[in-house]
Amino acid sequence: MEEIKVRTAGGDYPVSIGRRIYAKVLGTILEKVNPPKVVIVSHPSIMELHASRVEEALRNWIHRGGKAAYFVFPEGEGNKNLHYFEKGLFYLLEKGFTREDLLIAFGGGVVGDLAGYLASSYQRGMRYTQLPTSLMAMVDSSIGGKVGLDLPGAKNAVGSFYQPAAVICDTEVLATLPVRELKSGLAEVVKYGFLYDGQLLREMRELGVDQEDVLEAATEVVARCVALKAEVVYQDERDLTGKRALLNYGHTFGHALESATGYGVLRHGEAVALGMMAAARASELHGLAEAGLLDMHMEVLMPLLKGVEMQTYPGLGRIVEDMGKDKKRGRDMRFVLLEGPQRPRLVESLSLHVAGKALEEIMQRIGEDL
Amino acid sequence: MEEIKVRTAGGDYPVSIGRRIYAKVLGTILEKVNPPKVVIVSHPSIMELHASRVEEALRNWIHRGGKAAYFVFPEGEGNKNLHYFEKGLFYLLEKGFTREDLLIAFGGGVVGDLAGYLASSYQRGMRYTQLPTSLMAMVDSSIGGKVGLDLPGAKNAVGSFYQPAAVICDTEVLATLPVRELKSGLAEVVKYGFLYDGQLLREMRELGVDQEDVLEAATEVVARCVALKAEVVYQDERDLTGKRALLNYGHTFGHALESATGYGVLRHGEAVALGMMAAARASELHGLAEAGLLDMHMEVLMPLLKGVEMQTYPGLGRIVEDMGKDKKRGRDMRFVLLEGPQRPRLVESLSLHVAGKALEEIMQRIGEDL
Repeated sequence: MEEIKVRTAGGDYPVSIGRRIYAKVLGTILEKVNPPKVVIVSHPSIMELHASRVEEALRNWIHRGGKAAYFVFPEGEGNKNLHYFEKGLFYLLEKGFTREDLLIAFGGGVVGDLAGYLASSYQRGMRYTQLPTSLMAMVDSSIGGKVGLDLPGAKNAVGSFYQPAAVICDTEVLATLPVRELKSGLAEVVKYGFLYDGQLLREMRELGVDQEDVLEAATEVVARCVALKAEVVYQDERDLTGKRALLNYGHTFGHALESATGYGVLRHGEAVALGMMAAARASELHGLAEAGLLDMHMEVLMPLLKGVEMQTYPGLGRIVEDMGKDKKRGRDMRFVLLEGPQRPRLVESLSLHVAGKALEEIMQRIGEDL
Repeated sequence: MEEIKVRTAGGDYPVSIGRRIYAKVLGTILEKVNPPKVVIVSHPSIMELHASRVEEALRNWIHRGGKAAYFVFPEGEGNKNLHYFEKGLFYLLEKGFTREDLLIAFGGGVVGDLAGYLASSYQRGMRYTQLPTSLMAMVDSSIGGKVGLDLPGAKNAVGSFYQPAAVICDTEVLATLPVRELKSGLAEVVKYGFLYDGQLLREMRELGVDQEDVLEAATEVVARCVALKAEVVYQDERDLTGKRALLNYGHTFGHALESATGYGVLRHGEAVALGMMAAARASELHGLAEAGLLDMHMEVLMPLLKGVEMQTYPGLGRIVEDMGKDKKRGRDMRFVLLEGPQRPRLVESLSLHVAGKALEEIMQRIGEDL
């Protein structure tokens, strides 16, 4: 088992990574926090696959008088909304939860975001732990305290910075993850490679996308990414200096693609993979990076996109137009580009014309290559 | 003009107190923060009475290209709810507000709480300033970053700790406050006296409740209370050590009374005044304080309650029963009692029987004395 400390203004917390570690780590947390009650927030499918693992981890604590309750809400980014936020608040109130109790977010990124926001808001903040069940959530969204929900057409428009008491990444649960989800998570790993870690990038190229190989390497890969993210969070917890904003590499294009195709058509990691390619091409077109950057991206990212349906996309014109609308509304339109591998730069001056051209070229090449 | 610094984990901010100070202080803040846009959150009645004061303060900044928008929602504690939270979020999204913009909470406690929570939640936190317009908000709720909203039957059940960039108390706006509201605010001032400041208590007794006299003394009185609250917030910003919980003196009884009588029947300060008397009597009955503590309370608090209709109360039995229900649900049922003036103590062991008896005695004496 690996343990990595995330250092934040409000205190440090541990991220534990390993196989079958829920019972051990959660047991320690329950002893330390000693909550009267625990609420587990999750999705039906996660509960079906993995509820027994958490129940086993809670067993001793329940024997000693602890009480557990479950708030389960339907899957999908579309449900990370005010409606289920309200439902969750009423559930906590109805069941008499207080600040002294512990919330456990048990699921992927959607669960972690909504459950964390519930924890941050209910009675001005109850304690919570993240038990991420997807690779994407393990390497990215469960670390660093960004929690929240979407408004229609505006991802993560509501939320707060609220750090968990602990994060537990049990890599065994990844075995039940659909291959497509696993590959989507690998895109976020590749992102760390291009942003910070050439060695990780080489290893990811060698590792490939075979499910067995990835599961085998999961603890080490997750630990590497968590350590990189922890350093970023330490340096810029509140996303103020631009350092944390670099983690959005591929995300400005990616969000536009997700929004234009309708959430759920592309996996988040797939949109980010396409977005990184578009950002790499934009870096070339903008004169920031030498030619060849896109090819480096294609080599490692295309295997992650193999088999993904690309026909259902609407015109790319609309995507770029939507970006323009955002800009007109005064929204943040900074792009993270690369001067080269591991040389990220925040660029405010990228023209939408270049952005659109980059995205168009990418989608055309993808169509040819897949 | 007086200026008091509130020191918090996330940085310090100034509370400015004086007459006709909006233009000067807000002008300085706008120059420092330099927001592209400003949104003023307020009530219709405040806008009618005082909008021109803020508009005047914004005039120069608007001339230089700044843009102001208004989100106005109906008055009353009953509207500090999820419905107007949602409305506010959609308003900010629709108008294209970002983290870079500034929110101005312009009103009493209800506006400050809901507007502050909007600021803390929208895009994970935009900057905001509190412009409290009631005495209660100036001396208490606008200071210290507690923001949030109510769930049905559960006051302040949702919220966060989110400090403003500045607080501006323009005591001139108090002149339009109904006398009953002004007296309600004085109850919170008296609370600081009983908790921390014997000199303030003596001065309040001498000052009386004449509107002219109170307005004359307002800047000094507000500054004294703000300084006391700032010290508490510095010592226990997140309400964790019990120090900030002492500010709830009179509030456990007070909330129960407000809830039992229906919000709006009693002013918050009136409920707190009654609650402090009940707490004083409970302190005597519990054997914590010597006899005479209640009389000291009656002497300074009864003038604040003069003229308030007391007939509409339901049976006190229900109030105490409701407290019991809260306790069964595991809610916080700690009482702040006094060993004597300026000697507060947090008590977990007060029996509901004693609490109920104290409240009954108070309400009976009140009925006789008013």
